[in-house]
Amino acid sequence: MKPKFAIGVDLGATTVKTGLVSSSGKILYQNKLPTNGHLGPSAVIQQIELSVRDAMVHADGKKPAGIGIGAPGVVDDEGVVKWPPNMKRWNEVPLAREVKKIFRRYQIKVENDANAAAIAESKFGAGRKFPDFLFVIWGTGVGGGIILDHKIYRGPSGGAGEIGHISINYEGPKCNCGNYGCVESYVGQRYLSQRTAERLKDQPESMIAQLVGGDFTKLEPMYIAQAAQQGDRLAREMLAEAATLLGVALAGVMNTMDLRVSIIGGGISAAGGFVLQAVEESVRSRVLTPLRRDIKVLQAQLGNNAGILGAAGLVL
Amino acid sequence: MKPKFAIGVDLGATTVKTGLVSSSGKILYQNKLPTNGHLGPSAVIQQIELSVRDAMVHADGKKPAGIGIGAPGVVDDEGVVKWPPNMKRWNEVPLAREVKKIFRRYQIKVENDANAAAIAESKFGAGRKFPDFLFVIWGTGVGGGIILDHKIYRGPSGGAGEIGHISINYEGPKCNCGNYGCVESYVGQRYLSQRTAERLKDQPESMIAQLVGGDFTKLEPMYIAQAAQQGDRLAREMLAEAATLLGVALAGVMNTMDLRVSIIGGGISAAGGFVLQAVEESVRSRVLTPLRRDIKVLQAQLGNNAGILGAAGLVL
Repeated sequence: MKPKFAIGVDLGATTVKTGLVSSSGKILYQNKLPTNGHLGPSAVIQQIELSVRDAMVHADGKKPAGIGIGAPGVVDDEGVVKWPPNMKRWNEVPLAREVKKIFRRYQIKVENDANAAAIAESKFGAGRKFPDFLFVIWGTGVGGGIILDHKIYRGPSGGAGEIGHISINYEGPKCNCGNYGCVESYVGQRYLSQRTAERLKDQPESMIAQLVGGDFTKLEPMYIAQAAQQGDRLAREMLAEAATLLGVALAGVMNTMDLRVSIIGGGISAAGGFVLQAVEESVRSRVLTPLRRDIKVLQAQLGNNAGILGAAGLVL
Repeated sequence: MKPKFAIGVDLGATTVKTGLVSSSGKILYQNKLPTNGHLGPSAVIQQIELSVRDAMVHADGKKPAGIGIGAPGVVDDEGVVKWPPNMKRWNEVPLAREVKKIFRRYQIKVENDANAAAIAESKFGAGRKFPDFLFVIWGTGVGGGIILDHKIYRGPSGGAGEIGHISINYEGPKCNCGNYGCVESYVGQRYLSQRTAERLKDQPESMIAQLVGGDFTKLEPMYIAQAAQQGDRLAREMLAEAATLLGVALAGVMNTMDLRVSIIGGGISAAGGFVLQAVEESVRSRVLTPLRRDIKVLQAQLGNNAGILGAAGLVL
């Protein structure tokens, strides 16, 4: 009998979250451990081992379909994880091979975390109905994954979906990546908060100032969203502006790849339908005519579970 | 025995060019007729019929592998040609079906013209060595086609590759397409000529002014390129600027799709290696680090024959 569940590992910069996931996308059990990324690759692999063994204890002795891992950085076709940010002494680690050494009886698959989340939305979330879509993570940074014909498009070396460094203004500010005017440097969490803080100096009456108790270093898009929902003018302006700018980049991707649907997850997308609607209006007004009618910008449905679900989805 | 040649039809806005093409990409014979686009679809189909019949006369009674047609506009999976520019009374025409009615014994395939040219470069031209690349037509406008794993990526409805309307400046001038700051509106032939003409007012000593005999309405990128090759400052500035701006859009596509190679055809690309080198430098300086080392911007090799060759390539 075919196994009805798999193990999904969401390897993050600070925590490893591992779950038993049913073939219909239910998380039957999950745990959480520190990643220990500051201790180097073998410490991280040890944490993966611990979390997987713990999850297996809860599998009632049944054998899972395999172990899927979503990891930060670029992941190549052989499951080598390259240059993950915030991991010490980790250039290129053959993670799939290393984990296979520990769990020899199991199928092991490793995928980039944004791609894993895209797969999760495709199999279990907002993307089930759509064979082709762009998944966008809009939070600290801007990242993504591309689903074509219900499958992830990885690109020749596994790096596809990096939409955060599309320039929307060739004369814009220089980004850490070397490019100018990257969409991430306009709408990423940090930049959005910074820009809002600056504007608050001139508009101290904004509700946002109250919500952070006057301490602008506490500013997060969540507060901007709260204020916006209560009609605060500055907050609505800031979010509408960010949504419009994200839409500029998305429209370029829709035109280039002949896509219609964007599914947006990540911290800022949770700010509410109002923001996604503004993204949708921006994309619709900017794409080529044949695409316009069908443009959709939808909220991701799986939130923080997308990582575990997508990782399990790799082997389900 | 498998046929060693096919018929390729390059359906343009003003002329239909049809050729007998060998399986190694040699044009054994070709003809040229007016498209008669102003007379409506059935007149155009009649010209296709005439040109194909003429080509067959030169096939020595052998049966071709089929008839491929490259057409302007969006072409769907069934060979319906939608909204080609500069064709009268042509909204959606099932061109593959109509041509099949005439040539019942033959396999008929229809593809968008930019995609056909991309296929030509992939099978017979500068793209033979590269499984994945972006083909760019840089001429009157900016268009393209995407080759993934040696095959054309058409997108869900056949519209993929429309890179000309990627915005490189969200505050840029409004484009006919409805978007703002489209790369085409900075580097397309007409816009480039217009901007150069404006700058010539302040720099009338530029060699460009001599080349067009003082008549700026005659200005074409060809003259700018000629002047640039002879060291004219304004000409070099204009082309370098355009190359840099094209590179901004290409870098976004490379990042998003995990691509490294761009192959550039069309009028302006013919201006010389100097221009393509400037595009390459721009792309390289703007893409994400993992791609940087492998970035290549190459000149298309097939020139005006790409249309016929790519069309034949559809059935070879």
